[in-house]
Amino acid sequence: MSMNDLITPALLLDKGKMLKNINKMRDKFKKHGVSLRPHLKTCKSIDVAKYLVPDLEAGKITVSTVAEAEYFSKGGYRDILYAISITPSKLARLHKLQQRGCQITLITDSLAGFQQISDAASKLKTTFPCLIEVDCDGVRAGLKSNDPELLVLAKALHEYPNTELAGVMTHAGGSYNCESLDEIKQMAETERQIVLDAAHAVRGANLPCPIISLGSTPTATYGESFEGITEVRAGVYVFQDLVMQTVGVCKKEDIALSVLATVISHNVPENRILIDAGGLALSKDTGKPNELGHKHFGQVCEAVTGHPIQDLYVSSTNQEHGLLYLDDLPYNFSDFPIGSKLRILPNHACMTAAAYQGYEVLSDNGSISEFYPRCHGW
Amino acid sequence: MSMNDLITPALLLDKGKMLKNINKMRDKFKKHGVSLRPHLKTCKSIDVAKYLVPDLEAGKITVSTVAEAEYFSKGGYRDILYAISITPSKLARLHKLQQRGCQITLITDSLAGFQQISDAASKLKTTFPCLIEVDCDGVRAGLKSNDPELLVLAKALHEYPNTELAGVMTHAGGSYNCESLDEIKQMAETERQIVLDAAHAVRGANLPCPIISLGSTPTATYGESFEGITEVRAGVYVFQDLVMQTVGVCKKEDIALSVLATVISHNVPENRILIDAGGLALSKDTGKPNELGHKHFGQVCEAVTGHPIQDLYVSSTNQEHGLLYLDDLPYNFSDFPIGSKLRILPNHACMTAAAYQGYEVLSDNGSISEFYPRCHGW
Repeated sequence: MSMNDLITPALLLDKGKMLKNINKMRDKFKKHGVSLRPHLKTCKSIDVAKYLVPDLEAGKITVSTVAEAEYFSKGGYRDILYAISITPSKLARLHKLQQRGCQITLITDSLAGFQQISDAASKLKTTFPCLIEVDCDGVRAGLKSNDPELLVLAKALHEYPNTELAGVMTHAGGSYNCESLDEIKQMAETERQIVLDAAHAVRGANLPCPIISLGSTPTATYGESFEGITEVRAGVYVFQDLVMQTVGVCKKEDIALSVLATVISHNVPENRILIDAGGLALSKDTGKPNELGHKHFGQVCEAVTGHPIQDLYVSSTNQEHGLLYLDDLPYNFSDFPIGSKLRILPNHACMTAAAYQGYEVLSDNGSISEFYPRCHGW
Repeated sequence: MSMNDLITPALLLDKGKMLKNINKMRDKFKKHGVSLRPHLKTCKSIDVAKYLVPDLEAGKITVSTVAEAEYFSKGGYRDILYAISITPSKLARLHKLQQRGCQITLITDSLAGFQQISDAASKLKTTFPCLIEVDCDGVRAGLKSNDPELLVLAKALHEYPNTELAGVMTHAGGSYNCESLDEIKQMAETERQIVLDAAHAVRGANLPCPIISLGSTPTATYGESFEGITEVRAGVYVFQDLVMQTVGVCKKEDIALSVLATVISHNVPENRILIDAGGLALSKDTGKPNELGHKHFGQVCEAVTGHPIQDLYVSSTNQEHGLLYLDDLPYNFSDFPIGSKLRILPNHACMTAAAYQGYEVLSDNGSISEFYPRCHGW
């Protein structure tokens, strides 16, 4: 099958680029001797996961929804970290995965959260291992590593019968806002120090802390030391995207995901080209401003080669229309005939991919060789 | 079933509010004696559509994807307008619906587009009725009503064997940017005048123009005259949302759609509450700034009553986390215990609903009585 046989918008996955991204990260942590526990919230696809974590039985994965946990468990994975603070109503479904032989690790950052896990697990007559989430950058969740609640929580998780203290984890999501590689390196070191501080506090209180987990694609990519860390989590590196490129984590040519679209209209008086990939197909995530400082919904590329068309971005979107403002750009309408195809690099791969039933897999020879379905919902 | 039995995030549909929204619009156009052709891109649900357009056999609907056309055709609808300029590769699938007895009307705004429809229809040995899209506000697609190409296109659609000139249509999407009801009324009148100008031009050239179609929720709601218009299209009024409320089209209490979420974490040092509805559950559409002038991802409401909590919005989102910044608001963490539920009104109903498998239907007595599935993809 060729690209031309696809109904647009379609989600293209360049398999060669994906494998390069996967291997680069895998090689790095093999060298560091640290486990990688890829976050599968980006791909949500068992076919992609098999490249990320080839050993299903022993491999470690991270998920962000119960639906993902169920889907990847069905696909054969056994060691699953659910990396969002849990609500007790979700535990019955996760317990079913335990009954099928899965190790389901939870995270929590409060005594109230612990109490709810403990109560629900007790009713289910099970035990959930839990990591304590530590805040390393003030942008999301977690306890500060010096918060007195940390040890109270660790003690409770360890001592109560239906929870098990599995360790500590943090996520340097703030690295998405770094403005230089030095800043990312520094943030990676801060991320490591803070989660180690938490681990030392826990161990200092004679409590177990087998897992010390951290990660984000920028800090995993540029972090220099992972000493003391037992596992690294990262997700978006599998595809990369324009946010990662803007932060300096990858180049545009590393981005494995793109949306194939068709030119459907020329609004000549307004100097705009319309494509059939809009807010649903690209997501409404505006990522980071482009090289010209403009907000946008994706970089426009040539369909066949995938090469970026300089300075051409999707400037605005309706539900099913993407608008390319030609403004002062050196392009003519005849460069983009109605019916011709374009490819759009996404701002945020996780959000863009979410709208599609799956990936149209693009081989090195330019043909569409496979379709990888995705899981959806919660 | 009660709200507490739902796994969060969940998409709640207040059926009573939805029916009020539907009836208000239906009553208006009954009074005006103009057909309503609801745009089903918002609901994408046959169960909702049956309230919007109860007469499946004779009712008129608008769709934005081939997947919607297939889904609603399977559900029993026969008269379907595909209201995005088409690409020829989509016509084979639409032709299958013709073969099952559906009337599929297309839109186009260029000779190149016409040529592609004509060629593809010829190969399929069929004819597609087409509306010419006219631009009334410069924000999306369409020919200006005085563009000489309009009549050339009309003539081609009429004379070529595989297309049929069905009329003209426009969409005042620019009404979403209006800042007063007077401005909306004015835009509604401009929308009407411009599509009528186009229709007069077509008819003046002795060409048929049976359909004169316009619409957007703001202009359909506040337009005062629809004289000369044969049908009105609108979509988001079925649920309403915060964009419509900000534009003045509805009140917050009219919004029938909300996302049920659970409080999962308190970040006390940062003065933030975290919920399990993030960018996927709410969409990344930032809509319009709130009353305080802030960008946000939805208005926070009490879960049971659905009443808005004053000035409390989802300030930022990660994929599965929503962050509520308490800042200087008069609320305490104890007002939002971990494990408690909240409801979020969406900025843009069409985008938010798209992430869900369907609607949890909330009855007037507060119970969850039904589940309405949605269609997905393209």
